[in-house]
Amino acid sequence: MEMYENIYNSLLKVKEKNPLVHHITNYVTVNDCANIVLAIGGSPVMADDEREVEEMVSIASSLVINIGTLNGRTVQSMILAGKRANKLNIPVILDPVGVGATTYRTKVAKKLIEEVNFSVIRGNLSEIKNIAGIKVVTKGVDTSEIGDTSSKMEEEKEIAQQLSKKLNAVIAITGEVDCISSEDKSYYIANGHKILSKITGTGCMCSSLIGSFCGAESDYLMAAVAGIASMGIAGEIAYEKTKNLGIGSFKASLMDSIYNLDLNIYKERSKIY
Amino acid sequence: MEMYENIYNSLLKVKEKNPLVHHITNYVTVNDCANIVLAIGGSPVMADDEREVEEMVSIASSLVINIGTLNGRTVQSMILAGKRANKLNIPVILDPVGVGATTYRTKVAKKLIEEVNFSVIRGNLSEIKNIAGIKVVTKGVDTSEIGDTSSKMEEEKEIAQQLSKKLNAVIAITGEVDCISSEDKSYYIANGHKILSKITGTGCMCSSLIGSFCGAESDYLMAAVAGIASMGIAGEIAYEKTKNLGIGSFKASLMDSIYNLDLNIYKERSKIY
Amino acid sequence: MEMYENIYNSLLKVKEKNPLVHHITNYVTVNDCANIVLAIGGSPVMADDEREVEEMVSIASSLVINIGTLNGRTVQSMILAGKRANKLNIPVILDPVGVGATTYRTKVAKKLIEEVNFSVIRGNLSEIKNIAGIKVVTKGVDTSEIGDTSSKMEEEKEIAQQLSKKLNAVIAITGEVDCISSEDKSYYIANGHKILSKITGTGCMCSSLIGSFCGAESDYLMAAVAGIASMGIAGEIAYEKTKNLGIGSFKASLMDSIYNLDLNIYKERSKIY
Repeated sequence: MEMYENIYNSLLKVKEKNPLVHHITNYVTVNDCANIVLAIGGSPVMADDEREVEEMVSIASSLVINIGTLNGRTVQSMILAGKRANKLNIPVILDPVGVGATTYRTKVAKKLIEEVNFSVIRGNLSEIKNIAGIKVVTKGVDTSEIGDTSSKMEEEKEIAQQLSKKLNAVIAITGEVDCISSEDKSYYIANGHKILSKITGTGCMCSSLIGSFCGAESDYLMAAVAGIASMGIAGEIAYEKTKNLGIGSFKASLMDSIYNLDLNIYKERSKIY
Repeated sequence: MEMYENIYNSLLKVKEKNPLVHHITNYVTVNDCANIVLAIGGSPVMADDEREVEEMVSIASSLVINIGTLNGRTVQSMILAGKRANKLNIPVILDPVGVGATTYRTKVAKKLIEEVNFSVIRGNLSEIKNIAGIKVVTKGVDTSEIGDTSSKMEEEKEIAQQLSKKLNAVIAITGEVDCISSEDKSYYIANGHKILSKITGTGCMCSSLIGSFCGAESDYLMAAVAGIASMGIAGEIAYEKTKNLGIGSFKASLMDSIYNLDLNIYKERSKIY
Repeated sequence: MEMYENIYNSLLKVKEKNPLVHHITNYVTVNDCANIVLAIGGSPVMADDEREVEEMVSIASSLVINIGTLNGRTVQSMILAGKRANKLNIPVILDPVGVGATTYRTKVAKKLIEEVNFSVIRGNLSEIKNIAGIKVVTKGVDTSEIGDTSSKMEEEKEIAQQLSKKLNAVIAITGEVDCISSEDKSYYIANGHKILSKITGTGCMCSSLIGSFCGAESDYLMAAVAGIASMGIAGEIAYEKTKNLGIGSFKASLMDSIYNLDLNIYKERSKIY
């Protein structure tokens, strides 16, 4: 079976199961994350109080932890929910937004990884390098390094596979070309459009898509590939539909495009190696 | 006077008074709630710190309490603001989002109902059943039961009227057909479109519309009918304008449609029994 | 050089430098603030925990403090980040949303001004009057007085210049005609459209634009003029493109218009005196 068929099969599973995707996330992009989960076929729930997260996650199909606007209160909730999810074999996805930008952010990410077993960790190269303990210079939460070359692709694959082995998690490095790896298998995805970096939350939304797929697809490497490919392809379509109209039109069209993904679109557009 | 004329009269009152609608609400849909209040003709304010909510609500025309992402801090604010609103005869609307999904959520809703007198409570059937003490199975915060039949409509009316009598509040059960009841009078509304459930926050926005109408219309049963009918009709128009474009376009069009409601639209489209 | 050229030069500086604009802001309009910073050419970061704000602001080009949904936790973060920014000569912008509406809000604004040196303070007339210690009647957080006359313009200029002298900050009073002042120099801007007041967050977004310009333009009076003129002009264009479609379409078009500002647009539309 071709990769685009695998992705489409994963999408069908999401549409059929309508997985409940529990998020403990930031207040900047939370609405977009909820809507993109609905657009792909899941159901979002965003409870974050420590008094209820364990109970909420226990009825969920997956858990997305996003540290975009972390604080003492929600970090505690993330750990409680993550541990409970682990006990119940519910997949947990980590989006370590801006890790490396501050000492606190780095400490929290480290603590999360110590306390919780993640099924998928998705970040840009500097975030994943930080998680892997490789020194990087970070600027805010949106850092990504441009100018991928084949040597950079090799480097990403090596970092991702080593980290995957260490953490027993699928590692997804998103950028101009995305690199998604299990311990011994890697995929590159060349979909996407640079305008995606001109709206806030495309990284967060991508993690929410991965969470949606993980809630319905037991192969988490495939789920991560499906989520990232879907985001990239939808970005391409949205750009083609709105061109230089601007980011307001682009954002609405991006949601539309996620909502309308189908077999033909995956077949025609997937650039997965 | 026909119902559509009553609703339109309520709308005119909103446009004329420009009621200040104080929300203590969740961080997922708060922006949409603020915008829909503006679209219908009100003014939103979202202060939620316990140091200021009593003073803020005292200059407001209505208060909307939404427990979507409740936590210890805001629950205290909800109670303080609700009690102050009660003292000042300012109507209070409750949206018990996801009540029943967790023990904490159920406890908080119960406590709110014990401490605050609500003018209107709006939820889906499972939420209202939970408030009424009727056992249900809940999935996350978006549960609604589909497949209304006339026996189900009768059941909803009975639940709503009994709960209305008990709490001295208008009870609004939204779903495929909505049921809005005072102690002895019920309306059914058959407006809406199923795509409304594919964007986040339509329930919350509906409660904010009810809050806007309650801020200008002293008949709270009429205010609830007006808010719910407005949402349903706007959803129909938005779907007709955007068809299968997707939920990004639909959401923008939904806001547009609320903004442009008028007498003719209510006349042609209202399905209220 | 004409004013429109100065503004365009400031825009070029933003596009070239891509300043990191740290916000400690409200959860109602935070997504729109992030997107408008991206649309003008900056990079937003919204960290608000006291454990990390000092470190985060130290890598930022400017700091925007917005008290829309203030609470005890974030107020402490605002002071910490503001003081650190002052030490590092990073410009700090204050948006005193709804100051005067509650005692708490007024106290917090006062404390912020005592503890932090602001480069720019932007508010509507009632907010700025409150900061200046002039008694006003406030309704919620969106109060603005309409019906500007030349005597009112003179009054605004006097208030702004006196406050500017007292606080050593650029003072921006936005309304039908905006008044932006340093201690001894004032500009009026007559751009904008009244529909801007029908979506939430245009004030906040305006402050975020000022923050973006301040992150790249060392003349903060010019930065404030550039931010406010950009918002007004984008509002005009968005209204012309969407007319009476409604506020959903208008909002998307507003973001588009900020994204597409260029020299010709500033030249043709700037109404700055």
